[in-house]
Amino acid sequence: MSLVIVGTVAFDAIETPFGKTDKIVGGAATFAGLAASYLYDQVKLISVIGEDFGDDNINILKSRGIDVEGVEIVEGGKSFFWSGKYHNDMNSRDTLITELNVLADFDPKIPASYQDCTYLLLGNLTPQVQMQTLDRLAQAPKLVVLDTMNFWMDVALDDLKKVLQKVDVLTINDAEARQLSGEYSLVKAAEIILQMGPKYLIIKKGEHGALLFGEGQVFSAPALPLADVFDPTGAGDAFAGGFIGYLAKVKTINFTNMKNAIIYGSALASFCVEKFGTEQLQHLTAEDIKSRIQKFIALAKFEISE
Amino acid sequence: MSLVIVGTVAFDAIETPFGKTDKIVGGAATFAGLAASYLYDQVKLISVIGEDFGDDNINILKSRGIDVEGVEIVEGGKSFFWSGKYHNDMNSRDTLITELNVLADFDPKIPASYQDCTYLLLGNLTPQVQMQTLDRLAQAPKLVVLDTMNFWMDVALDDLKKVLQKVDVLTINDAEARQLSGEYSLVKAAEIILQMGPKYLIIKKGEHGALLFGEGQVFSAPALPLADVFDPTGAGDAFAGGFIGYLAKVKTINFTNMKNAIIYGSALASFCVEKFGTEQLQHLTAEDIKSRIQKFIALAKFEISE
Repeated sequence: MSLVIVGTVAFDAIETPFGKTDKIVGGAATFAGLAASYLYDQVKLISVIGEDFGDDNINILKSRGIDVEGVEIVEGGKSFFWSGKYHNDMNSRDTLITELNVLADFDPKIPASYQDCTYLLLGNLTPQVQMQTLDRLAQAPKLVVLDTMNFWMDVALDDLKKVLQKVDVLTINDAEARQLSGEYSLVKAAEIILQMGPKYLIIKKGEHGALLFGEGQVFSAPALPLADVFDPTGAGDAFAGGFIGYLAKVKTINFTNMKNAIIYGSALASFCVEKFGTEQLQHLTAEDIKSRIQKFIALAKFEISE
Repeated sequence: MSLVIVGTVAFDAIETPFGKTDKIVGGAATFAGLAASYLYDQVKLISVIGEDFGDDNINILKSRGIDVEGVEIVEGGKSFFWSGKYHNDMNSRDTLITELNVLADFDPKIPASYQDCTYLLLGNLTPQVQMQTLDRLAQAPKLVVLDTMNFWMDVALDDLKKVLQKVDVLTINDAEARQLSGEYSLVKAAEIILQMGPKYLIIKKGEHGALLFGEGQVFSAPALPLADVFDPTGAGDAFAGGFIGYLAKVKTINFTNMKNAIIYGSALASFCVEKFGTEQLQHLTAEDIKSRIQKFIALAKFEISE
């Protein structure tokens, strides 16, 4: 039994109102893998990097017990690089540089040791690579979670719809849910999207929390109000990693556990944004996570008895 | 013991993607009073209307047991009239017409029978009228809730700050909290605003719910995801009315009861937006409210045990 995450392992250069970084480690699979590693101990990544990535950076993953056998290193290649600048509200950003580099020809390889995949997170990538990953697993995983974004709805909608038919959970933001469904109301959007294949839909609303739809139910998870959001990069990926990591840990897939998984995902995301890049996700303790979960419980709890 | 609400009683003409109304009954005190009337039976309004308002419309309030002795009728005067058009997203709107009419010279009169005021809702009005109302009560109420908006921050900030020093609870939306505090982070905004006088701050986030700050704690209340938001007019007022109505009912003012009060306010607001104007708030049953509260409980509940 393992949790396999396919996605980018990359370099980011980030500017926020709080400061600026040179190239630092980023990528959806990196954030998701680190987040998941606090909840489950069999986390395995599938990705592609260049020779420039370097052992020190690989060790950030390895030191969290993450299996990187499936992270292909392209000789002479350069790693995917993204650079962005966040606006003052931290909810919008400009992409300054996108260099696909080795990601342009990403052909996901599944090591034999990954064929025990029980939980699969298809990180935000071309729907074609997401489908290839699924196709190359000998057995269908028990749970497939897919993350995507508006870009793929614009340029690869048909491919995206094909892979949606094969996933259990879709995570997108509210604008993307509206785009994918053509409905403004998130309730109506969820109805339409759940007919596209996923059994569960998670709508991420950033500082406004997240909604879970499925089994005819709906759950509203709060986001932790933070005094400072230092760098939002990777928050959605940390959320997805925490989410699937929790489900891998508890093993039973149902609405009740999905709700808790969303709280764990939200907690990991809340740590992620407190420092630049993966910094905060590298050194959490079990106590950190436990006390953050307690904050979420206090934040949302009310008792009405009549 | 009574709950006194000061605010507009008025006419609205509304256009939404779902339809269009002629002049219908509106006004902050109307929405708040109707909402409160489902939770507390001593609701008294202070407002001013013109002769055009008519007995049928007054009876909408009276039939809910609301005391209108404090609603002054100006002979030959015309009632406040607002007309607006909502955009497709229902979160933004254009004001088409604002005719202050009798509201321009509103001089709030407190009937002797209102001097038993224990709970006071200062609806969205000029801060000067809000202050006059407070000043004209012989005894300070046990709880004062103030609603305001960005317009008064723009044109009457000093007056607003004076009245803020005398209130227990302030309700504003997130953009207004940012404007009033000069801080983007709502956590920092709340810290600053709570130093201006109120012991509690409620930040209304529309379809994203509400945040309560006070006593060093924070609570995040969900909004009920709705398939159709028919007409958002009055939702904030219904929220405020339901909120203070619940506190008047339970009598004890503390963070725990404030949280529940926000859920009741949110429930009343969720009814409000399901039809045009006050239509839905005129004919609710106790069963309607109870089952709506159950929906909120199911929406927010999760249980993590470790």
